[in-house]
Amino acid sequence: MTCLDLSCDVVSLTAALVDIESVSHDERGIADAVEQVLQPLPHLDLVRDGHTLVARTDLGRDERVVIAGHLDTVPVNANLPSRLDDEHLHGLGSCDMKGGVAVGLLLAAGLPEPNRDVTYVFYECEEVAAADNGLGRLARTRPELLAADFAILMEPSNAAVEAGCQGTMRVDVVVRGERAHSARAWMGVNAIHAAAPVLERLVAYEPRQPVIDGLTYREGMNAIAIEGGVAGNVLPDACRVGVNYRFAPDRSLEEAFAHLAELFDGFDLELRDQAPGALPGLDRPAAAAFVEAVGGEVRPKFGWTDVSQFSALGVPAVNFGPGDPSLAHTQAERVPVGHLRHCEQRMRRWLA
Amino acid sequence: MTCLDLSCDVVSLTAALVDIESVSHDERGIADAVEQVLQPLPHLDLVRDGHTLVARTDLGRDERVVIAGHLDTVPVNANLPSRLDDEHLHGLGSCDMKGGVAVGLLLAAGLPEPNRDVTYVFYECEEVAAADNGLGRLARTRPELLAADFAILMEPSNAAVEAGCQGTMRVDVVVRGERAHSARAWMGVNAIHAAAPVLERLVAYEPRQPVIDGLTYREGMNAIAIEGGVAGNVLPDACRVGVNYRFAPDRSLEEAFAHLAELFDGFDLELRDQAPGALPGLDRPAAAAFVEAVGGEVRPKFGWTDVSQFSALGVPAVNFGPGDPSLAHTQAERVPVGHLRHCEQRMRRWLA
Repeated sequence: MTCLDLSCDVVSLTAALVDIESVSHDERGIADAVEQVLQPLPHLDLVRDGHTLVARTDLGRDERVVIAGHLDTVPVNANLPSRLDDEHLHGLGSCDMKGGVAVGLLLAAGLPEPNRDVTYVFYECEEVAAADNGLGRLARTRPELLAADFAILMEPSNAAVEAGCQGTMRVDVVVRGERAHSARAWMGVNAIHAAAPVLERLVAYEPRQPVIDGLTYREGMNAIAIEGGVAGNVLPDACRVGVNYRFAPDRSLEEAFAHLAELFDGFDLELRDQAPGALPGLDRPAAAAFVEAVGGEVRPKFGWTDVSQFSALGVPAVNFGPGDPSLAHTQAERVPVGHLRHCEQRMRRWLA
Repeated sequence: MTCLDLSCDVVSLTAALVDIESVSHDERGIADAVEQVLQPLPHLDLVRDGHTLVARTDLGRDERVVIAGHLDTVPVNANLPSRLDDEHLHGLGSCDMKGGVAVGLLLAAGLPEPNRDVTYVFYECEEVAAADNGLGRLARTRPELLAADFAILMEPSNAAVEAGCQGTMRVDVVVRGERAHSARAWMGVNAIHAAAPVLERLVAYEPRQPVIDGLTYREGMNAIAIEGGVAGNVLPDACRVGVNYRFAPDRSLEEAFAHLAELFDGFDLELRDQAPGALPGLDRPAAAAFVEAVGGEVRPKFGWTDVSQFSALGVPAVNFGPGDPSLAHTQAERVPVGHLRHCEQRMRRWLA
């Protein structure tokens, strides 16, 4: 087993974490390594649940915060082991999100008496189906371990605070027709032609840009799939348009579906999957204090992240972590050394 | 081997032919049976090429006509053996087109001195790829066997003359975009949305209905397939719309493609397949005489058939055969007994 050294700097620790391969469903090694370095620390109560670790201070502070990051990565793509150059640490998981995990581990080890009680969560299976997500399992089975006034998910956010997250819903718009030989088209109804209004409504759609807690969220309504066709000489009797709606966190799942039903009035909708958004919660004192301490511009989060799991537990949460999220899941994944140092320093200042 | 009896009536002979299973590429048995009954006839020169048979009178008449039908069927679909009720003979191939073959065989045997020289063609592999088509092979390798003033293809046409055939062309209209995360759609270009004008042009399209030799052909322009999509959270960078153009025989393949290029101006076209139409040729004396002899209303043929193979050889050709073409390739395939008798009688009258 790789031994981690929590006395080294954040760049070296991130490199060591990257070099422990931990593709989703294969997190035993990295969870063992993290458990090994947290176990001896007397100021932390450590709980292991599968390959998910929860380490809590218990100092009786007025406020408790969660600092969380996932241990897994997407599949290896010829991007291991890690490699350091002047400005970046390269390698699978460097950005998404072992840099954030390294910051969390250094805080856990280096701050025995933080000014707020802290619950550190290092969890498994974020990159795969929601049913396997270690944070989700804790929320279902041991929600008391996640109780807090505020949560920070250290997903890459360019070392700036990204508040809340948008919800996502995917539906199939189903268009019906009637088969006929394509040489006698007047005998049938072409379902692909009948899908023209679906595309026209998508093209004409003007996404909302609601302002919530001072942040402007940009919604999105996009076809992400289309299929239809029986044979080269047959008018198709069905066409299916997959639509992904990304909606600001002032809308519930029910409201989002009602909006889709109204937009595609006259067509059948089939719900494929959905995940609610999370309100930024910047009006809560703990959140406001965090934003003030770490500084910088607060941005809205357009993608969906696990902050919504905290939101569902009534805990306001933000994303704050090193790395450019647009590099996540790419072969060229990397994290700026400056981001790693900045995040560690700001978090340490906030908790010291 | 099944022995055919050319002294029985057209209904019994059709039933006997249906009961010789002859799915495409498995025509040996039926070709052997046909060869066995034609071989002894002294007034016919018989040539076998694979499982394709050509039987010719050589009486030195001023005019020569072709009477042709294919021996193969689409796959068995729980519709064998044949079954006769009061009005119909049921079974695979009864309609497409062993009824027509039975008529041809009875004429070949029963008219030793027709008033025109006749070339009977019974061929293999019509229901599969054009490259395997027995008639096409003869046209390429022994076109002299098909030389004639006029040809009758005994494909089902409700026992009426269907003249010429429309051409068919299939293209993919390719629409490009640029990938982006669907939560940040403004970073990309959605290729499915960009396909909206393709569908709009298809919906707005008004097919031509040109009149040729007094027959009105109805063209058709239809999407027969559409596909696009990368993943549920990704803006697609490509969308492909398969379009089938059925065009009247006054247009060449080149003209048909130019028409598609004009209609879908601004998009890339990829040609998938094509087959030319065939002019009705009703202005030729041999064709006019046939139409007068068999009587009834002449209709245009909207689907594509092997008459275009004769057209390509400079031989005007029509479809004339028993059975409703809309039942071809269906499990419930059947042929009206009245059609069988009508076609045999009219053809016999024309040639006697």
